[in-house]
Amino acid sequence: MKRPDPQQNGGEAFVNCDGTVAEAPRLKKIQFADQKLEFNKRPTKIGRRSLSRSISQSSTDSYSSAASYTDSSDDETSPRDKQQKNSKGNADFCIKNIKQADFGRREIEIAEQEMPALMALRKRAQGEKPLAGAKIVGCTHITAQTAVLMETLSALGAQCRWAACNIYSTQNEVAAALAEGVFAWKGESEDDFWWCIDRCVNVEGWQPNMILDDGGDLTHWIYKKYPNMFKKIKGIVEESVTGVHRLYQLSKAGKLCVPAMNVNDSVTKQKFDNLYCCRESILDGLKRTTDVMFGGKQVVVCGYGEVGKGCSAALKAMGSIVYVTEIDPICALQACMDGFRLVKLNEVIRQVDIVITCTGILESKCLKVDIHLPPFQASLRTPELTWERVRSQVDHVIWPDGKRIVLLAEGRLLNLSCSTVPTFVLSITATTQALALIELYNAPEGRYKQDVYLLPKKMDEYVASLHLPTFDAHLTELSDEQAKYLGLNKNGPFKPNYYRSASA
Amino acid sequence: MKRPDPQQNGGEAFVNCDGTVAEAPRLKKIQFADQKLEFNKRPTKIGRRSLSRSISQSSTDSYSSAASYTDSSDDETSPRDKQQKNSKGNADFCIKNIKQADFGRREIEIAEQEMPALMALRKRAQGEKPLAGAKIVGCTHITAQTAVLMETLSALGAQCRWAACNIYSTQNEVAAALAEGVFAWKGESEDDFWWCIDRCVNVEGWQPNMILDDGGDLTHWIYKKYPNMFKKIKGIVEESVTGVHRLYQLSKAGKLCVPAMNVNDSVTKQKFDNLYCCRESILDGLKRTTDVMFGGKQVVVCGYGEVGKGCSAALKAMGSIVYVTEIDPICALQACMDGFRLVKLNEVIRQVDIVITCTGILESKCLKVDIHLPPFQASLRTPELTWERVRSQVDHVIWPDGKRIVLLAEGRLLNLSCSTVPTFVLSITATTQALALIELYNAPEGRYKQDVYLLPKKMDEYVASLHLPTFDAHLTELSDEQAKYLGLNKNGPFKPNYYRSASA
Amino acid sequence: MKRPDPQQNGGEAFVNCDGTVAEAPRLKKIQFADQKLEFNKRPTKIGRRSLSRSISQSSTDSYSSAASYTDSSDDETSPRDKQQKNSKGNADFCIKNIKQADFGRREIEIAEQEMPALMALRKRAQGEKPLAGAKIVGCTHITAQTAVLMETLSALGAQCRWAACNIYSTQNEVAAALAEGVFAWKGESEDDFWWCIDRCVNVEGWQPNMILDDGGDLTHWIYKKYPNMFKKIKGIVEESVTGVHRLYQLSKAGKLCVPAMNVNDSVTKQKFDNLYCCRESILDGLKRTTDVMFGGKQVVVCGYGEVGKGCSAALKAMGSIVYVTEIDPICALQACMDGFRLVKLNEVIRQVDIVITCTGILESKCLKVDIHLPPFQASLRTPELTWERVRSQVDHVIWPDGKRIVLLAEGRLLNLSCSTVPTFVLSITATTQALALIELYNAPEGRYKQDVYLLPKKMDEYVASLHLPTFDAHLTELSDEQAKYLGLNKNGPFKPNYYRSASA
Amino acid sequence: MKRPDPQQNGGEAFVNCDGTVAEAPRLKKIQFADQKLEFNKRPTKIGRRSLSRSISQSSTDSYSSAASYTDSSDDETSPRDKQQKNSKGNADFCIKNIKQADFGRREIEIAEQEMPALMALRKRAQGEKPLAGAKIVGCTHITAQTAVLMETLSALGAQCRWAACNIYSTQNEVAAALAEGVFAWKGESEDDFWWCIDRCVNVEGWQPNMILDDGGDLTHWIYKKYPNMFKKIKGIVEESVTGVHRLYQLSKAGKLCVPAMNVNDSVTKQKFDNLYCCRESILDGLKRTTDVMFGGKQVVVCGYGEVGKGCSAALKAMGSIVYVTEIDPICALQACMDGFRLVKLNEVIRQVDIVITCTGILESKCLKVDIHLPPFQASLRTPELTWERVRSQVDHVIWPDGKRIVLLAEGRLLNLSCSTVPTFVLSITATTQALALIELYNAPEGRYKQDVYLLPKKMDEYVASLHLPTFDAHLTELSDEQAKYLGLNKNGPFKPNYYRSASA
Repeated sequence: MKRPDPQQNGGEAFVNCDGTVAEAPRLKKIQFADQKLEFNKRPTKIGRRSLSRSISQSSTDSYSSAASYTDSSDDETSPRDKQQKNSKGNADFCIKNIKQADFGRREIEIAEQEMPALMALRKRAQGEKPLAGAKIVGCTHITAQTAVLMETLSALGAQCRWAACNIYSTQNEVAAALAEGVFAWKGESEDDFWWCIDRCVNVEGWQPNMILDDGGDLTHWIYKKYPNMFKKIKGIVEESVTGVHRLYQLSKAGKLCVPAMNVNDSVTKQKFDNLYCCRESILDGLKRTTDVMFGGKQVVVCGYGEVGKGCSAALKAMGSIVYVTEIDPICALQACMDGFRLVKLNEVIRQVDIVITCTGILESKCLKVDIHLPPFQASLRTPELTWERVRSQVDHVIWPDGKRIVLLAEGRLLNLSCSTVPTFVLSITATTQALALIELYNAPEGRYKQDVYLLPKKMDEYVASLHLPTFDAHLTELSDEQAKYLGLNKNGPFKPNYYRSASA
Repeated sequence: MKRPDPQQNGGEAFVNCDGTVAEAPRLKKIQFADQKLEFNKRPTKIGRRSLSRSISQSSTDSYSSAASYTDSSDDETSPRDKQQKNSKGNADFCIKNIKQADFGRREIEIAEQEMPALMALRKRAQGEKPLAGAKIVGCTHITAQTAVLMETLSALGAQCRWAACNIYSTQNEVAAALAEGVFAWKGESEDDFWWCIDRCVNVEGWQPNMILDDGGDLTHWIYKKYPNMFKKIKGIVEESVTGVHRLYQLSKAGKLCVPAMNVNDSVTKQKFDNLYCCRESILDGLKRTTDVMFGGKQVVVCGYGEVGKGCSAALKAMGSIVYVTEIDPICALQACMDGFRLVKLNEVIRQVDIVITCTGILESKCLKVDIHLPPFQASLRTPELTWERVRSQVDHVIWPDGKRIVLLAEGRLLNLSCSTVPTFVLSITATTQALALIELYNAPEGRYKQDVYLLPKKMDEYVASLHLPTFDAHLTELSDEQAKYLGLNKNGPFKPNYYRSASA
Repeated sequence: MKRPDPQQNGGEAFVNCDGTVAEAPRLKKIQFADQKLEFNKRPTKIGRRSLSRSISQSSTDSYSSAASYTDSSDDETSPRDKQQKNSKGNADFCIKNIKQADFGRREIEIAEQEMPALMALRKRAQGEKPLAGAKIVGCTHITAQTAVLMETLSALGAQCRWAACNIYSTQNEVAAALAEGVFAWKGESEDDFWWCIDRCVNVEGWQPNMILDDGGDLTHWIYKKYPNMFKKIKGIVEESVTGVHRLYQLSKAGKLCVPAMNVNDSVTKQKFDNLYCCRESILDGLKRTTDVMFGGKQVVVCGYGEVGKGCSAALKAMGSIVYVTEIDPICALQACMDGFRLVKLNEVIRQVDIVITCTGILESKCLKVDIHLPPFQASLRTPELTWERVRSQVDHVIWPDGKRIVLLAEGRLLNLSCSTVPTFVLSITATTQALALIELYNAPEGRYKQDVYLLPKKMDEYVASLHLPTFDAHLTELSDEQAKYLGLNKNGPFKPNYYRSASA
Repeated sequence: MKRPDPQQNGGEAFVNCDGTVAEAPRLKKIQFADQKLEFNKRPTKIGRRSLSRSISQSSTDSYSSAASYTDSSDDETSPRDKQQKNSKGNADFCIKNIKQADFGRREIEIAEQEMPALMALRKRAQGEKPLAGAKIVGCTHITAQTAVLMETLSALGAQCRWAACNIYSTQNEVAAALAEGVFAWKGESEDDFWWCIDRCVNVEGWQPNMILDDGGDLTHWIYKKYPNMFKKIKGIVEESVTGVHRLYQLSKAGKLCVPAMNVNDSVTKQKFDNLYCCRESILDGLKRTTDVMFGGKQVVVCGYGEVGKGCSAALKAMGSIVYVTEIDPICALQACMDGFRLVKLNEVIRQVDIVITCTGILESKCLKVDIHLPPFQASLRTPELTWERVRSQVDHVIWPDGKRIVLLAEGRLLNLSCSTVPTFVLSITATTQALALIELYNAPEGRYKQDVYLLPKKMDEYVASLHLPTFDAHLTELSDEQAKYLGLNKNGPFKPNYYRSASA
């Protein structure tokens, strides 16, 4: 059967699960290049620009911290042209330099110390192998933390092949330490990017039955190239906002062929990615870029969701005077009760020292520390205002009267561009991914349909419980009498499904 | 048709909406007297004990603050035996002493200042009367704050008749200021209680079409005595945990005859009743009862829901060292990230100075500052331990080695027993009630079925927005461009329905 | 020798230590009646007004908490006309009603639990009696906490006679429990006041050799009536700002006959009286009087000394938006760094909900939570503004546009008028007093001259150390090596004398 | 006159002010090499090791931030061998590369924005030139911030010659921008170091009359080489703990020839160097070195002085569980009241994740964030414990059971080694230095003797006031009436001299 050329018919097309072709639904048009959500864009058109978008949209990128370890070595030979073997003589991989394996192993070991939950899963795996028989193809950032995940999946019985979801974020030394089944390096070309993915999917004697994706590119590739593969695939686990959005679109359009697990929106992950992580990274990012003293500074935080709450609390604790803007009256009232003056941006813009935007930019409420709510950023690009680049990632925007504000990361995400994400936060994500894979792989026929699911509450609780020992935290167990009194199962879940959270 | 006597058949029976009788479902048996949830219990059996339960279960009781204003006057004549007229010559009421009307008016005026949202609704009512034609029968605590609500409902076009939902909580002077249509006084007998309700419901020339209930007793009475009335009733607005629980039971059993609005679980109300209010009342309650210095004290907070979060944060801010216990790993992990040692109670019970329990005691997640998780309280009643009453509402429990803990309110709710609820919190509740009444009364046929509903998100946002001016808070309005970009309506709701909060 | 009549020569006179008379120095004229510092004012002129000043100027008055326990019993007989004996048959006292002794004992026992340092001193006293032979005459508030001090002094070997320093503050039941040597009751007349003091000083067979004073009235009385007594007196311990001020005046004038210890200004006491105590009492006082919700309220705190720091921190923690005013640039800069907008009062007066003044009113830096910086209070008494009394101790001051502020305690000290002082704070004071008495009584000839001294640093540290066990706090001891390295004595003092604190 | 050779007499000698020689006092022997205080050590013996000590002892080193801007350029020619001229044709300087002047000017301009007080002094200098005629020789770190100071001194009328107080800390581009009179570069040899100082002091036609020193090396050099110069010198301004210590030693020994101003111990500087700066730098330093997540981490802070208070508060605010150790009971009690468990190190060492020592190591109470209280560090060097270097400046110390702690900077100061000092903090220091120079230079004969002085309170207040506009902070001015009432001068000082701070 001839596959249609989407470009020819001037629109977008989709290969359905059964191999037939359908007109793709018109996705909402989003204007700004680096947030493009076009799922159907032809691979060959994806240039550096749109690939690097992944850096900002994957919520737990460790790009900047990685940067410090990975040499931009002088070896200019493409990995695709190299013949390398690992210490076991295996050559089924494509990475930058196998000699960095020992250095990479050291990084992985450090990461292991802050990823207690995965290590606990490994211990349990000595008895049971819940992923025995699983053939996982993964496409994520390739960092020390991912390595701990991959090696945990192996310990649980799975076979894995892995590509990078971003052309810049690979820690080469980590890729070298993993080697077998890994196809990734820092600085891939566009063509390399898809070549690596293809090498993970389409290799003789290998039929993947699980997908772990971050951004949806891997899922996309299989949809485009190997739709029949979905017949053997038990499920997709997707972590990014973008990828999840794509899956919901597929589901709405009736084109989702297998169950998919949205691990982005699990309670635990959300709290860590947003509130807890940003509470620390806002300080870190500002300090590393500007050495600013927080005490006494006037700051306006735009948006009082979880990210805004974290940023506001941290800066207040450091002695800044924080103003908040909001559009949602409920969040606005919370800001008031938490002790922040609720203002409109224009009321304070001339008096504040720092502006931080923590506004949602996608329908799916991707709350982020960014600085690029477009209408606002645009409003700073006026003849009245002077822009001055003071350091890498730091601009001053100067009013005629000399008052200036600090603009960081030129509109990219501060917490990813200018600070690092603690391993412990990535541990939450990785554990959630591992459990989602286990759940989908072992779920009895019929439990999950061709739809997008949230991780079951109980597994979310399990992720949390696996991280408690790190803090030497002792969970209380209900007595039989108490459980009965409360009408709860002693092992959870502890919140009823109809429980409506009061957080927003 | 003869109505069966529930007592005769030794069980519980229910009059269905159509007037037929059915065996009532066996409600879950709950052991502790003051939390009994038996909806069908016969009125005549409801003694002081079970009536006073309402005090602890209505979430916004102002009993203790009321206490200081209401004289326990020496006038022993029952209000039922008195002939009183208000200044307009009206005698359709039954209250303690009409002479207290001026004093009560003063209290109402003070309350008005802290209930800006209701006052705003009144202003709007000069143009439109959204409750024109409404005949509301209410059964709530009768306090200055309730009075502001009642008079707002009148301003919106409604006629009201009102009884007290609790035999002790009525502020007599406020009842005097209201007078017309009010049947309530402090210290009602059991018989008085139901007599007052009946006088609100069953009076010549009056057919109520809306119910505002707090605890479910009014609803119960109409179910038992006047089931046919439901034919003209447009809906029930219920505020208490207990009453909401009863409504869900009725709904499950297929016996709910009219739409009901659960205003207890609206986001705004929950945040105020639990987090914001308890953050202040824990300090207030402890200080008023014990004059304890918080600085340096070791405290264990049992439960880290919204109430536990508020209590822990407040005490930490005052220099206490706070430990937390939890059964839910997600809440437990939050406690860790917020800087609290997660322990089991027995690990710290001998070293802490204060124990605060903030545990849920009902399936519907009634989070409260209480001290009476029964198995725990029981565990303090051992021969090893000595109890010493040091002041009203304050007991010391003393270990053999002389270490002691302070036990407050003997198991009743600290925030209601030992501190006051700020009017502003009650304003949130009252506004939510008013909007729920408006919504149910004006909803087009078919919008609501015979089920229990939460207040629509948008109205919840409206309640919040009406309270922002108090804080001189300026909400940002989306531009058309921004709204389009975000895919939101400029007027809300601002969170999609499938938004899953990360709070627990 | 004839003593001059101060009134006759129209001025003030002083009896010198040797019995001669000198013209008194003109004291600085202070305008406001209730802060008059006239040391030499004739007793007979001291009316209720000027006596009650002591209530506000003694920094650790427990008047308001006392109020709740002491019956204003119907027994109108003056204690001076009663014949009472305690259970041992002793009649050398004059108190309201000996039958209240058991109730008073209970109160004393409760206080003992929060005064660990004094109890520790008692334990040590089983071996040594550092006050053996001491004959102490005291004049302080007579409360449960003072009783613990008095009985500790007795346990240390002293004999005591005691009068009240304030005509209203005596807890009658505590006086009854103490009985022997106590001359005090609630509601003394002016004449009673001096009669009681005289009975403590001038009784056959009793020659006091130590003075413990609070306000200077006792010292004054001896100066006036029995100047020769000073020949046998080893020293004066004075606690109040007023009394200390008087002593410094005497010292400057060369009229101080004995060493005096200023215990008001010891580091530990200052921190507790100001920062730690006010941090809690500002919340307590505001809540008890107004039930105000702190969250979201705008507050201006005038003065950013220790009291202002405590108030600001507490309110910020509760979600208030706090502005600060200051005259001292160093304190002002601290406010900025701590995250408070520094403003002038007139810039925010119309927008804030609450004004709290924490300004010094005496040269000796008596920092207080007050509301009566006179020029400010006066500025609120204009025809433009309406005052409305809403409750006891609560006034609303209303601007023409309806904006209003809450004025508490009409200019008296909020923390003393509207909240209680925790026993633990009083414990710090009482221990400091006890140690000062021990130091002065046992000091070798020549260590102290006829001057005013601060408690030696080392003893201040000792007061602190005696309170650590309450918190189960474990102090680190320097090893010999470390002490040598640091050039410190292992037992302190730990701060050199020339250490200049950075606090202001 | 022949100058004695200190080495010859085998001991230490001193040239007295009058040119005679005296035996030097034996300084207290301090064991640890990098804290040696030997004032008299011969220059030629000062190797890299002891020079680099200055890095850690100067309290406001900007070394690490400087590092990122200064190229370790490939130009290996010694500046001493270069012929360079600035744009004005002047060649009286010795710096690395005059071509970097523009880059350096940019850095200076950025610094100017955060040093408002110096810029304000410049503005005033348009009218008056308080340093007209001053010939200042300086020896400090040469950074952008110092440049702002130097150019301010010039604007005030002074002539300046400047050397670096540290062989590594010079920002070459800043030195290039200053050029005239500057003798300094990054990476000086020992010989270069003294050569540069000498070039500042001893040049034809130049007789310095003021000294600005940081560490005492310049002062030392003049004492050794040109003692007669002191006859024309009006005073010394010294900033470092070490230098101040040396001056006090000289003063005690009667060898101080001119007045000296200790600017290290001014209130404002202390608060900023310790509390406010460390509150931020502890987070910054930990994050940059370890990317650790603060939330939930257990931390022990050793020492609860200003530095310990800042660190503890910051970590608590970020969700860490903080324990404190102390030797001083007063500070210990403060820790308790602030909500920290007071423990001994050995009680928690195995359970905590991070140990931070903030202990004094010098008599003069130099509080620092360090990790090298020697007995403690030594106790970690046992066979039981494994040390693992994980990154630059980061070691893990591992217990046999696998528990590990993070050790940073191997015992050097975390806040200087691993984070930067905000320009605003350096602004406080620089302004204090400028005012001290003005004061000493203009003081009338006799105001200052040959002794070490603290900056007058009023000037300290002035430093603070000059920094308030940065925060748009509005200081309140006393009215005449208020000032009179309070007995204060309207312009300060606002705290009496006998005011005893309560901070420790």
